[in-house]
Amino acid sequence: MLSNSRSVQVEFGHCDPSGIVFNPNYFIWFDFSVHALLARAGMSLKSLIEEFGIDGIPLVDNKARFKAPSRWGDDLVIETTITALHRSAFELQHVVRNGDVVAVECSETRVWTAFDAEQGRIRAATIPPRVIAAFSG
Amino acid sequence: MLSNSRSVQVEFGHCDPSGIVFNPNYFIWFDFSVHALLARAGMSLKSLIEEFGIDGIPLVDNKARFKAPSRWGDDLVIETTITALHRSAFELQHVVRNGDVVAVECSETRVWTAFDAEQGRIRAATIPPRVIAAFSG
Amino acid sequence: MLSNSRSVQVEFGHCDPSGIVFNPNYFIWFDFSVHALLARAGMSLKSLIEEFGIDGIPLVDNKARFKAPSRWGDDLVIETTITALHRSAFELQHVVRNGDVVAVECSETRVWTAFDAEQGRIRAATIPPRVIAAFSG
Amino acid sequence: MLSNSRSVQVEFGHCDPSGIVFNPNYFIWFDFSVHALLARAGMSLKSLIEEFGIDGIPLVDNKARFKAPSRWGDDLVIETTITALHRSAFELQHVVRNGDVVAVECSETRVWTAFDAEQGRIRAATIPPRVIAAFSG
Repeated sequence: MLSNSRSVQVEFGHCDPSGIVFNPNYFIWFDFSVHALLARAGMSLKSLIEEFGIDGIPLVDNKARFKAPSRWGDDLVIETTITALHRSAFELQHVVRNGDVVAVECSETRVWTAFDAEQGRIRAATIPPRVIAAFSG
Repeated sequence: MLSNSRSVQVEFGHCDPSGIVFNPNYFIWFDFSVHALLARAGMSLKSLIEEFGIDGIPLVDNKARFKAPSRWGDDLVIETTITALHRSAFELQHVVRNGDVVAVECSETRVWTAFDAEQGRIRAATIPPRVIAAFSG
Repeated sequence: MLSNSRSVQVEFGHCDPSGIVFNPNYFIWFDFSVHALLARAGMSLKSLIEEFGIDGIPLVDNKARFKAPSRWGDDLVIETTITALHRSAFELQHVVRNGDVVAVECSETRVWTAFDAEQGRIRAATIPPRVIAAFSG
Repeated sequence: MLSNSRSVQVEFGHCDPSGIVFNPNYFIWFDFSVHALLARAGMSLKSLIEEFGIDGIPLVDNKARFKAPSRWGDDLVIETTITALHRSAFELQHVVRNGDVVAVECSETRVWTAFDAEQGRIRAATIPPRVIAAFSG
């Protein structure tokens, strides 16, 4: 399955008065990591919108475990992997490593959406075979 | 159980190029909502640190479902409720309402922590009876 | 001139490891305050885009003085005032009060822009009389 | 004078509904760039606090010009340079380049502060010779 790894340096401004990463920053980094995963497969959200007319790949659920705090100056590595492919949705996992320690684990589900002109609303759509192939890595 | 409700107006700057709330903002709002919940019970993280010598009430896991997008200009109401009390941890639920629609639901677990001088590290500690009483609402 | 005042509570998550507001948050609040100022005049960026076909009112320059730190739990009041009106630009001032103390002062210039179909690019455009009247307060 | 350059990729989540960088992000990046500049000189805010007992190097004023928008996917380079050294303050300039275009220019003043035990408050302090030497680059 498609996988990508990127590093993040914890900055002063990512941390709260406790001196540890203010936890919403992890979710910002996970969103950036999804875009980096697409880039790893030679795709971008922009190119997917242009090529397939999708509306986006919105997050529909996620589940995180914060196992160890990250501190100002720490060098993190975020590994992002596609873990499951469905007809119109896919699952990913993000693992944040801080040296030898797993700091955070997060799984998420995203949906492949398109604008349905007949119904006048966004709805789930079938992930195209080329994307399934790219995600299968 | 202790519960609190607060409103959030979705600002232009909360939204991404899709015109909907960039999802990490919900987690920022949930953190603010936990502090507002403490305030509702006449407590603050500062007062808890001073009175009980705790190190904080860090988030250890959360689980969110994004059920409907929120858009620039929407007026949201976030209801936050203590849903379970354990010896050294407690669970909360956040429900984000956008008019009649539930936009997001998130459950989270936080731990009551103290610095253990003998072991030289932070560890879970027993939630004091006065706090249990306040959380029981 | 048009003026508006809004309050902001400094949250734990707005502060950095020094325990004071991480300064970019002020600029986030100033952007929110510009939208609130428009709302005070019965307008919104959305309505201006629809009514006048503008592309936006982008910030072109700003200048801030950070005179006193704001801390977690402080209740701030941000006063935003139109200070000058030009043909295709306007100036604003934000004053952040923390009790009796002026914490931050910021002046900014924003431009009234439109998409120029002939030139295929965004350019400054004349602010319509109705908006000049509303900004004159 | 000490100078450092770092690259920033504009992410989807850095952009607002107009599709351009939400401007407070530049100030976040400038703060990160100041820390990177210190690192370039083999120092960190942490090491300065430990070695010299300072309270921090707070921003006291800044002035930015936003000359061209940056868009989702753009690769920016931020050049940060010490531009003036005073007894207890120093000035920096950040230049954000987006390919051949200067997107943003920002100058800022930061103060070398220490806790004055006699007066019980933070005040400006003399920048030590070793730091002046390092900043002189």
